[in-house]
Amino acid sequence: MHQPVDLKKAYRLLNHGPVTLVSSAHGGVRNVMAASWAMPLDFDPPKIAVVIDKNTLTRGLIEGSGEFALNIPARRIAPAVLAVGSRSGRDGDKFAASGLQTFAADRIAAPLVAGCVAWLECRVIDQPHNQQAYDLFLAEVVAAHADPRVFDGHWHFADDALRTLHYVAGGAFFQTGAEFSVEGAA
Amino acid sequence: MHQPVDLKKAYRLLNHGPVTLVSSAHGGVRNVMAASWAMPLDFDPPKIAVVIDKNTLTRGLIEGSGEFALNIPARRIAPAVLAVGSRSGRDGDKFAASGLQTFAADRIAAPLVAGCVAWLECRVIDQPHNQQAYDLFLAEVVAAHADPRVFDGHWHFADDALRTLHYVAGGAFFQTGAEFSVEGAA
Repeated sequence: MHQPVDLKKAYRLLNHGPVTLVSSAHGGVRNVMAASWAMPLDFDPPKIAVVIDKNTLTRGLIEGSGEFALNIPARRIAPAVLAVGSRSGRDGDKFAASGLQTFAADRIAAPLVAGCVAWLECRVIDQPHNQQAYDLFLAEVVAAHADPRVFDGHWHFADDALRTLHYVAGGAFFQTGAEFSVEGAA
Repeated sequence: MHQPVDLKKAYRLLNHGPVTLVSSAHGGVRNVMAASWAMPLDFDPPKIAVVIDKNTLTRGLIEGSGEFALNIPARRIAPAVLAVGSRSGRDGDKFAASGLQTFAADRIAAPLVAGCVAWLECRVIDQPHNQQAYDLFLAEVVAAHADPRVFDGHWHFADDALRTLHYVAGGAFFQTGAEFSVEGAA
């Protein structure tokens, strides 16, 4: 279930620091990996930064296509998030191995991951030094979508199964917790 | 309350995507601002990336000193986090205005913010193009500390007041929620 998100609000999909799944495709090969090291970089046009290690299959697919998606998974697919974060796509199709389904993106060729609750379609801003020296990719968000049950411009989590995730290490996750508001400072 | 954190585990302080307070000092001026756009960049030596807007007082202090700290606040000081995220240090000392106290860092001159639950002392890796074009700062973590009540190499949140925070927009925060583990994939 997904609806378009105004690009001016796309940063809100990533602002709270959830773990992401990076999906990519090039030359008939597709892949998906987990990435916690992703953050917004600008509001309008929206940009993001993400770390993609040189040793990953995803790295070559992104460098070849200049595109990828950041998919924001929900608790209901946490086992698949850990699975695609623990295997390499070189050992076989990770979508098949993890049971993750996909659907077509609007503006990029990479597939989007079903079962997630938000999606950012991204085009790489070519930065060879950042990529080589730091495995750091900067990208512009060219389309964004979210599950309207949890995001209508703000996140509203009611069902734990649809809460976003924050990864630490060793298979340990936190789910996004209770929301609260602080009144503006005087 | 703070104890040293092994630099090899320092990334875990930031891996789950909490909001941060950036503290800095230069030429007798000190400041603190809120930043959600921060992430780990490498494990060993640990590095981080953070976005620091050109319009902030903090920007000049960091460029002048080459140093800053990422302080990870807890829910008990959420009002102060919003306050220092809503004012400019040009309008007066934000520590005084927010009631935030400080203590001395080990390796840098910038103060650390009391009431937080983790601290990363950082030295800027000079990257003029990233800084100018994207407001993006890369830095090496040269010392790290955490409140032993919530971090002993892993995070353990029992008291809501000590939970870390995830910021969205408009004064709306999430606290870091329930922890759960997923068994390793086959």
